[in-house]
Amino acid sequence: MKRFLTLALFATLLMEPVRAQQALWGGPDVVSPQINGDRTVTFRLFAPEAESVQITGDCIRERPVTLQDGRTVKARQEEMTRRPDGVWEYTVPEPLASELYSYNLIVDGVKVTDPSNVYMIRDVSSVFSVFIVDGGQGDLYRVNDVPHGTVSRMWYHSDVLGMDRRLTVYTPAEYETGRDRYPVLYLLHGMGGDEEAWISLGRTAQIMDNLIARGRAEPMIVVMPNGNAWQDAAPGESPVGMVPPMLDRQRSMEGSYETSFPEIVSFIDSRFRTIAKKSGRAVAGLSMGGFHSLHLSCHYPDMFDYVGLFSAAIWPREGLDTPVYKDVEGQLARQFSKGLSLYYIAIGDEDFLYEDNCRYREFLDRNGYPYEYVETGEGHIWKNWRIYLSDFVPRLFRRQ
Amino acid sequence: MKRFLTLALFATLLMEPVRAQQALWGGPDVVSPQINGDRTVTFRLFAPEAESVQITGDCIRERPVTLQDGRTVKARQEEMTRRPDGVWEYTVPEPLASELYSYNLIVDGVKVTDPSNVYMIRDVSSVFSVFIVDGGQGDLYRVNDVPHGTVSRMWYHSDVLGMDRRLTVYTPAEYETGRDRYPVLYLLHGMGGDEEAWISLGRTAQIMDNLIARGRAEPMIVVMPNGNAWQDAAPGESPVGMVPPMLDRQRSMEGSYETSFPEIVSFIDSRFRTIAKKSGRAVAGLSMGGFHSLHLSCHYPDMFDYVGLFSAAIWPREGLDTPVYKDVEGQLARQFSKGLSLYYIAIGDEDFLYEDNCRYREFLDRNGYPYEYVETGEGHIWKNWRIYLSDFVPRLFRRQ
Repeated sequence: MKRFLTLALFATLLMEPVRAQQALWGGPDVVSPQINGDRTVTFRLFAPEAESVQITGDCIRERPVTLQDGRTVKARQEEMTRRPDGVWEYTVPEPLASELYSYNLIVDGVKVTDPSNVYMIRDVSSVFSVFIVDGGQGDLYRVNDVPHGTVSRMWYHSDVLGMDRRLTVYTPAEYETGRDRYPVLYLLHGMGGDEEAWISLGRTAQIMDNLIARGRAEPMIVVMPNGNAWQDAAPGESPVGMVPPMLDRQRSMEGSYETSFPEIVSFIDSRFRTIAKKSGRAVAGLSMGGFHSLHLSCHYPDMFDYVGLFSAAIWPREGLDTPVYKDVEGQLARQFSKGLSLYYIAIGDEDFLYEDNCRYREFLDRNGYPYEYVETGEGHIWKNWRIYLSDFVPRLFRRQ
Repeated sequence: MKRFLTLALFATLLMEPVRAQQALWGGPDVVSPQINGDRTVTFRLFAPEAESVQITGDCIRERPVTLQDGRTVKARQEEMTRRPDGVWEYTVPEPLASELYSYNLIVDGVKVTDPSNVYMIRDVSSVFSVFIVDGGQGDLYRVNDVPHGTVSRMWYHSDVLGMDRRLTVYTPAEYETGRDRYPVLYLLHGMGGDEEAWISLGRTAQIMDNLIARGRAEPMIVVMPNGNAWQDAAPGESPVGMVPPMLDRQRSMEGSYETSFPEIVSFIDSRFRTIAKKSGRAVAGLSMGGFHSLHLSCHYPDMFDYVGLFSAAIWPREGLDTPVYKDVEGQLARQFSKGLSLYYIAIGDEDFLYEDNCRYREFLDRNGYPYEYVETGEGHIWKNWRIYLSDFVPRLFRRQ
């Protein structure tokens, strides 16, 4: 076969190891982020022409920063230091706890992702570089050598909302090979999120794979719908094209999503081998998704046996012309009188919704409605929501 | 319910439309990229502190650029112009053809993605901002209001390679609701790619949805495996963690992937309603994936009835100790004597593998082996591979 062949440039391609993206005109190969043996982390950027480079992110300790206009605000931001070879560098001074962290670099005032790190996650309209520090909670978020479930993006039709809509479904590893029916957790995102939020920032597939492999959770299906009633799919996945995502405030929390929700449940029950009854269903969500979970579970008291409110928005919407938000106290009374296996509330003590949640718990206490409560530090952040999911899932569908 | 509620900051959140990410300390909202009515495109970056900003990408016309060291090279790069308000701007001088384009900005020498554009695609270790110009070929790559198939990421076990491995599967919209069996296209990536390449840069789901909706292609399943025998999954999706992707040259094209391929076919035939015979299978790939398609189809002459070589690497590997690459001429003779429905070759006239492909076609001609040939402009680029896929798929599995 040799006679009709030349190696041409292909051999060159084969000889050239793939390099991390670096500054345009070459320069030293930089590794960033570099997780050091002592769990500190070093960030690097080759930018010989830059005047200033900062790093900002949840891996940086919060401290006061003075703005150009003289105001001082608390920020998680540090100056990086220029080395003689044009590489800017910063090492966090103390070991980082095992977690998933996100950060951006700021090059002469422009916030960018780290060009040496291909791992990025979009949150609403912002894109962050991310990394995981192993050795603890972060191990739940990494891909480990365990059986892996399937993650599917699929579309269902909503008559109520008048459109085809996209959702993400996790099925556990054993689903494909077995014939059993499985319980379903409906997992709802917050405002600005979409059907990609829990699977990307929430690390749902990794958390589920790892909890199931450790025997800490029952195998279950997890359904992550799009909770924006005005939107068919995540930015870039919708016929509206690649335009910046905008919120339609009028249709975020006005009842139509809850009204349409049984369509999602019917779709999932028709496409998957589910335990299609209350004892086989959980609903949980963060922020606006917690609001949705609260209202869905009391508006359809025969639908969900497990409810999780993560940093939930507890918000009166009684003025709206929808039965979903009418007489919520009455709806809750009916829900709790029918009984359910778990009503779970989690929130951070710095969350701006903390006080609302305290009052809601007082209301539940006053009425003798049972619930489990988990309080963490910090506020309205993904770190907490991943922790709440990791804590909530092991409580679901336990076989006696 | 009002009595246990405060609106707190939540109302503020609700009032604030989500904005495209912008420079850290505020400044004007910029739209970038902006596709103008005349199909020119304007790029913008708010960077009042930057000394220089360039744009580079396949939407920029190639022209000579002088490097700092005095050398002149051809590059697709232009200077952006600073407006008084600190926004840098560049408009391409001529209308762009309908296509998917990728670009980066260069801020004081650092190549970054466009912070105003959340649509990015990773290619090997580089991340690009992308956009689509509608009105022609690009319409095949956008999400349109047509029935959408399901895209699943799943794992199979390979005894031959000794690991669980990840793959991407597209099932057409009607698959879920029907009971029919469907033909399968195995679609293989090039060197440096992985099981995410065809679905992201290749826009496979959009191309399939749109071709099927237009009646230009039969509904089919598309399987996009990971073609790197040494790798279980794409960077970040593997237990090796979030380390930069590196090639293992020793195990890229040494026969073990081809040897393991029947495991993939068995897995797909066991999990999906497939037409599990030669007439229901196609294999195609780009570059290294074309090499794999060539060898797979002749090494297993009863497996694939349709073969597509897109910018294929035609490369002698006879010295290796594997039956896969032994007596390839004999294997091809057997393959063509058994007959097949389509042998398709496509390449650009600027491709560095063009001459190799010419010689391979001469060999096919000499032996009277029939094939269809498509030649385009340009070279070894994703634009061509999307075009070849769009051209190849309508030729497959046509019902008479």
